[in-house]
Amino acid sequence: MARVTSASSSDPAPEPRARPIGVFDSGVGGLTVLHELLVQLPCEDFVYLGDTARFPYGERTPEELAGFASQIVEELLRRRAKLLVVACNSATAAALPILERRMMETTLGVDVLGVVRPEALQAVAATRTGRIGLLATPTTVASRSYERAVSAVDPHVTLTAVACPTLASIIQAGQQFDERAVDTVREVCVPLLEAGVDTVILGCTHYPLISPMLQRMLGPSVTLISSGGALARQVEHALSTRGLRNPREQGEGDYRFLCTGDTEAFRELGTRFLQMPLGTVEHVDLEQVGAPA
Amino acid sequence: MARVTSASSSDPAPEPRARPIGVFDSGVGGLTVLHELLVQLPCEDFVYLGDTARFPYGERTPEELAGFASQIVEELLRRRAKLLVVACNSATAAALPILERRMMETTLGVDVLGVVRPEALQAVAATRTGRIGLLATPTTVASRSYERAVSAVDPHVTLTAVACPTLASIIQAGQQFDERAVDTVREVCVPLLEAGVDTVILGCTHYPLISPMLQRMLGPSVTLISSGGALARQVEHALSTRGLRNPREQGEGDYRFLCTGDTEAFRELGTRFLQMPLGTVEHVDLEQVGAPA
Repeated sequence: MARVTSASSSDPAPEPRARPIGVFDSGVGGLTVLHELLVQLPCEDFVYLGDTARFPYGERTPEELAGFASQIVEELLRRRAKLLVVACNSATAAALPILERRMMETTLGVDVLGVVRPEALQAVAATRTGRIGLLATPTTVASRSYERAVSAVDPHVTLTAVACPTLASIIQAGQQFDERAVDTVREVCVPLLEAGVDTVILGCTHYPLISPMLQRMLGPSVTLISSGGALARQVEHALSTRGLRNPREQGEGDYRFLCTGDTEAFRELGTRFLQMPLGTVEHVDLEQVGAPA
Repeated sequence: MARVTSASSSDPAPEPRARPIGVFDSGVGGLTVLHELLVQLPCEDFVYLGDTARFPYGERTPEELAGFASQIVEELLRRRAKLLVVACNSATAAALPILERRMMETTLGVDVLGVVRPEALQAVAATRTGRIGLLATPTTVASRSYERAVSAVDPHVTLTAVACPTLASIIQAGQQFDERAVDTVREVCVPLLEAGVDTVILGCTHYPLISPMLQRMLGPSVTLISSGGALARQVEHALSTRGLRNPREQGEGDYRFLCTGDTEAFRELGTRFLQMPLGTVEHVDLEQVGAPA
């Protein structure tokens, strides 16, 4: 078994409502999702795991991703997560069905939510013309997961999907305001403007950092749907219906970070994505999870 | 007369609708206002003047501020501004009445809008309980300008004003996520939480940079009103009723920057406030305006 580094895991089990929500991603992108969760659900505690040592997930096989996701879920359950959020589009597409099946097989009663369905739901609810746009990485576009999710809600909606090969890396490198970035953003907007969409799904957790530019280029009447905003509602709904909302009456909850790579790099990059103080970042070694002691 | 450095001013006068909107502030804070204008009014051109050489305005006398504002307006009219926006709370409080009077005396037909009234209007429209909060600098709170503006719209609304002496400088120094900043933000929220406000006016253009933290501490049901969002609607309304909306049919307008201090410092600090690419920053010497050639 992995060395248990969390203090909380050796404490007696807290009552289910007081447990944290577990959020994970391949890196720092999911912090834009956590950002929304922290703003919309201030009373909850959160534990975020960034698998930065194995970042990026984009080129991994579905089998690899499913394996990574299982290790991460193991770690978050060890931290007594009451709900799991997959804040990563690649991991959601590759591993969510496996994780859902696994959670259903256990008697833990812990649900797992991904980023795709909540956005599809909110986009369909927002559109007035039935023409929705999608900006995402080539892998996510190729997976057709948003297309399926949108069709499942409303088969009459048309989805114009634009693959953006360089956008996430431009944003992660902190170059989102240079000329090349602006040209890239302008370029990905062209097919959306031509299709006359009135709602655009930001299908990558990095994209909220360029949403002002997107909003300006697409025009003020276009609704942008981000993973974080859509997920926050879904998480709130899931907690409420299961009677799992934190009973804290005042003050904000706690949030902490685990990462598999360099903690200082995570902190430095992470603050820009979280847009809030980052606090403690703890290193965690997932490769050892499930290995003999 | 001042040396004319703008190319446009030697061109033949463009038709009124195609002229830029002039926006000014003592420094970079007003860029959060420009940010909203760029997103909400993408077809318009803008010229922004930051009077960074004389920053901050907080300690200046009303006479000094009125003098500065007149020089700035002179420069922006020289740049053929079709509408003027005072994106600074101190300058609005001190100089708006003088500027309004001056504009009424001219035959230019150029209107001037400040930040206080639009926010008061929007806050009164947003509140359900009639309890509004205000976060602002001590000078702005002492001026009671928000109190008057709110009362003018609805005398039955109560305003809980909290003076924040250090918040703007913490944000400007880029320290908005350190422990001291978090403690400061938490502290200013206490009287607002005690008063049970459901709407909070961000009465300083720097505060939108900490709005996620504020939203989390105040809770998701509290509506935050920022200068930029409130002003954008007012500007749109002013342009529409005067038939002055830019007739541009596609693509975004142009925006450019003038500053009285160091242009590189303006660019570096400015990008964080604008959250968009900054482009050209031109140095302008206002002290010469109106002086003999």
